[in-house]
Amino acid sequence: MAARNIFYAQSGGVTAVINATACGVIEAARVERKLGKVLAGRNGIIGALREELIDTSRETRSAIAALRHTPSGAFGSCRYKLKSIEDNPTEYERLIEVFKAHDIGYFFYNGGGDSQDTANKISGLSKIMGYPLTCIGIPKTVDNDLPCTDTCPGFGSVAKYVAVSTLEAGLDVASMAESSTKIFVLEVMGRHAGWIAAAGALAKRNSFDPPHIIIFPEISFDRKNFLKKVKETVNRTGYCVIVASEGARYASGTYLADAGMKDAFGHTQLGGVAPTLVDMIRDAHGYKCHWSVADYLQRAARHLASATDVEQAYAVGAAAVRFALAGKNAVMPVIIRNKGKKYSWSIGEVPLSKVANKEKKLPRSFISKDGYGITPKGRRYLEPLIAGEDPPPYKNGIPVYVRLKNQLVRKKLPPFEIT
Amino acid sequence: MAARNIFYAQSGGVTAVINATACGVIEAARVERKLGKVLAGRNGIIGALREELIDTSRETRSAIAALRHTPSGAFGSCRYKLKSIEDNPTEYERLIEVFKAHDIGYFFYNGGGDSQDTANKISGLSKIMGYPLTCIGIPKTVDNDLPCTDTCPGFGSVAKYVAVSTLEAGLDVASMAESSTKIFVLEVMGRHAGWIAAAGALAKRNSFDPPHIIIFPEISFDRKNFLKKVKETVNRTGYCVIVASEGARYASGTYLADAGMKDAFGHTQLGGVAPTLVDMIRDAHGYKCHWSVADYLQRAARHLASATDVEQAYAVGAAAVRFALAGKNAVMPVIIRNKGKKYSWSIGEVPLSKVANKEKKLPRSFISKDGYGITPKGRRYLEPLIAGEDPPPYKNGIPVYVRLKNQLVRKKLPPFEIT
Repeated sequence: MAARNIFYAQSGGVTAVINATACGVIEAARVERKLGKVLAGRNGIIGALREELIDTSRETRSAIAALRHTPSGAFGSCRYKLKSIEDNPTEYERLIEVFKAHDIGYFFYNGGGDSQDTANKISGLSKIMGYPLTCIGIPKTVDNDLPCTDTCPGFGSVAKYVAVSTLEAGLDVASMAESSTKIFVLEVMGRHAGWIAAAGALAKRNSFDPPHIIIFPEISFDRKNFLKKVKETVNRTGYCVIVASEGARYASGTYLADAGMKDAFGHTQLGGVAPTLVDMIRDAHGYKCHWSVADYLQRAARHLASATDVEQAYAVGAAAVRFALAGKNAVMPVIIRNKGKKYSWSIGEVPLSKVANKEKKLPRSFISKDGYGITPKGRRYLEPLIAGEDPPPYKNGIPVYVRLKNQLVRKKLPPFEIT
Repeated sequence: MAARNIFYAQSGGVTAVINATACGVIEAARVERKLGKVLAGRNGIIGALREELIDTSRETRSAIAALRHTPSGAFGSCRYKLKSIEDNPTEYERLIEVFKAHDIGYFFYNGGGDSQDTANKISGLSKIMGYPLTCIGIPKTVDNDLPCTDTCPGFGSVAKYVAVSTLEAGLDVASMAESSTKIFVLEVMGRHAGWIAAAGALAKRNSFDPPHIIIFPEISFDRKNFLKKVKETVNRTGYCVIVASEGARYASGTYLADAGMKDAFGHTQLGGVAPTLVDMIRDAHGYKCHWSVADYLQRAARHLASATDVEQAYAVGAAAVRFALAGKNAVMPVIIRNKGKKYSWSIGEVPLSKVANKEKKLPRSFISKDGYGITPKGRRYLEPLIAGEDPPPYKNGIPVYVRLKNQLVRKKLPPFEIT
C-alpha cells in the first residue's frame, strides 16, 4: 500500500509554541517511509473544507526547523467549529471527500477542547462512512484547561511571560510608589481558568513582594473585600500590584468586564477587567493607578518562551506521528509528570472522548485561603513549567522568525461554500 | 581637601536601564580616590529633602554590578518637581543644608527634561548661596524627547520591546484573521512624541507586513481617514495591526483618551487610546478586534533590553563622574552619533540650560507622507538603537534582579515637611 498523507491543522487561538508542535509533526513524518506528505490546512480546518492544502514538502529542512522558534500559526488557524453531524452533514461529507481526493489517511488536529471534540467526531464519522482515517488530537492551549494532561503546550510560555512581566512591572511600581503610581493592574488571559493568573505569583518570594492580589475566575469577585485588601496592601507595603484574569466574575456569574461580543464558538469575548478594577480603586481610594492588558503579547511572546514548554510542544507533535504509525486512533498525546522530587516528564496517551469539551479549572488547593494568591502546592506545580530559556536567533535587534512559502496543493474538487 | 561625596538621584518614570546608569556612576566613582561615597536619594530628590540618603558603599561589588541588568529604580524614583526658587525657597535651602551636612560636593540628577531643569536651577542656586556644588544632569527617558542628544538611555530598550511585540502580535493576528480577529491595536507610551510608536515599524519589511497603521501624536488624528485606511488594509491584507501612541490627539488638541488625571508635573495622565480606537472600528466596520495596552511592561522589560541602550546608559553614568572630576558644572553627557555608514557613538556634553524643559518631537521627515508609517530616514535613525541582546541571568525560569540593602546614612538634621 502506498504511503498515505497526513492532514495537519492548527485550531483556535495560537501560541508561542504551536509551530514547535508543527515542527515535531513534520520532522518526525519526513523520516518515515511509511508516511506520505504532511499537508497543512490553510487557516486550519477551513483549509480542508476549501481544499486549501499547504504542501509542507515544498519547505526546506531549515525552514521547518525554524518553526520551532517561530510563534503563532505558520499555516493559519481558525475559530470555526463544525456543527453537529445531524445539523450539517455536508461539512463532514466534504471533509471526507477532500481527504479521499488527496489520499489523506491521518488527521492531526492541534487545538484545545473544542478541537479535540471535532477530532473525535471525525474519527467516529470515518468509521460510519467506511473511510479509513486515523485521527490524532494534539493538545494546545495557553489556558492550560485541558483535562488528562499535566499541562498544555503553550501554557508554560505564557506563564513565564506573566511571571516575568509581573516581576518587572512590580519593580517599576515599587520605584514610583512614594510620590506617584501606587497601583498596577495586569490583565491576563485564561478564559474561565485561573492558571495564567496564578503564574503571576512565580517571582514572589515573600508577602511584601508583588503580586499582592491575584483575581481568579474560580473565586467569586467581592468588590468590598477587594477594595479593603487593596487599601491594606498600600498601607503595609506602599503599593499594590494586581494580576487579574480576564475571566474574573462576580458571584452572580457576571463578568467584571463583559465586552458583549461572542466568538464563533459562542464564547463571550472578554477584555477590560484591568480598567474596570482601576476605576473601582480610583473611586474608592483615589490612588494613582496604571494598568496593562497583555492580550496577544502574552501568547505570542516567543522571545521569552519556556524551554520546557518548547520541548513539550515539539514532543507532542512527534508523538502524534508515532501514535499514527502504531495504529492508534482517536487518541491524544498528553504530558505526564513523572514521580520524584526533580521534575521530569514523559508522553502518555488518552482517548479523545475523555478530553473533548471539558475544562480543567485551577484546583482550590492551588489557591490560598483568602482567594488572592497561590499555595506552595500551586507553586510546586507551576514552577517547573516555566524553567529554561530558548531564545530565538536575532538579526538587527529583531528575532528571526520564519515565513513559509505555504504553497497549496492543486485542487481536484469543485469549490465548497462554508455556511 | 577631603574627597567629597556624590548625591545621585533617579527622577521621573523609571526605565529598563536607569540602574545601568546608576551602576556606571557607582563603579566609576568607587575607583576614584578624589571622590567620596555615592549617596543615593531614597525615592529621588524626595530623599534629599527628607535626608534619606542611601549609602551605596554598603553594597557589595557584585550587587552594584547586577544593577546593570536590573530594571526600574533601585533606590526609588519620584515625580516631584521643585517649585520655583521664588515660590518655595525653603526647599532649595533645605537641599543645600542636607548637602552641607553630608559633605556632598556633587549633585547627579538622572532624569528627563523636568529633572534637567531642576538640576540647572540647583546649580544656579549653589552659586547664589556660595555653596560649591558640581551639578551634572544624566539623561534618561523612554520617550526619547530630550534635545541635544542623539538618543536617550531607556528609549532603545522600549523601542526593541515595541518592535518585537508588534512583530509577534502581528504574526498572531495574521494566523487568526481568516475566521476571527482582524484588528489588533497596541497602545504604547511616548507622551507627546511619537518615537516609541515609530519603533513599532522596525520589524516591517514590506507594505503587507504589520504594523499597517501607526498613530503618532505629531499627526492630527482624522477619524474618517483612519477608518478608511483600516478598511482598505483589511481588504488588501486580510487584517490590520495598529500601533497607537498614548499621546494621539485630534486637530483640536483633544487626546483620543484623556483619563482626566494629572500627575505631579501637571501633565495629563494618558491611557486608553487602544480601546477607544477599537470601539471606533467595531462601530464602523464590525470587525473582531483585540487590543493591548503595554504600559509599564514596555519600560520595565529588562529581559528584552537593547544591548546598545544598556551600554549607553552605563556610559552616561560613568561620564558624569568623569565630567565632575574634570570640574565641569551644569552640563549633561549626551550620546553623539558618529559620522559614517556603520553605526557608532561617543559621549559628548551639553549645558543643562539647553536641555531643560524642551521636548524633541519625531521629525516630520521620519514620518511617511500619509502620516501612518515611518520613512527610510526614520528607520535608519531607529534601527541601530535596538541592536544587540543583553539578557539578564535566569534562575528557575525567572530573571535574577538584584535587591539592594539600601541602608540609610544616619540623619544629622531635624525633619523637614514636604509641602
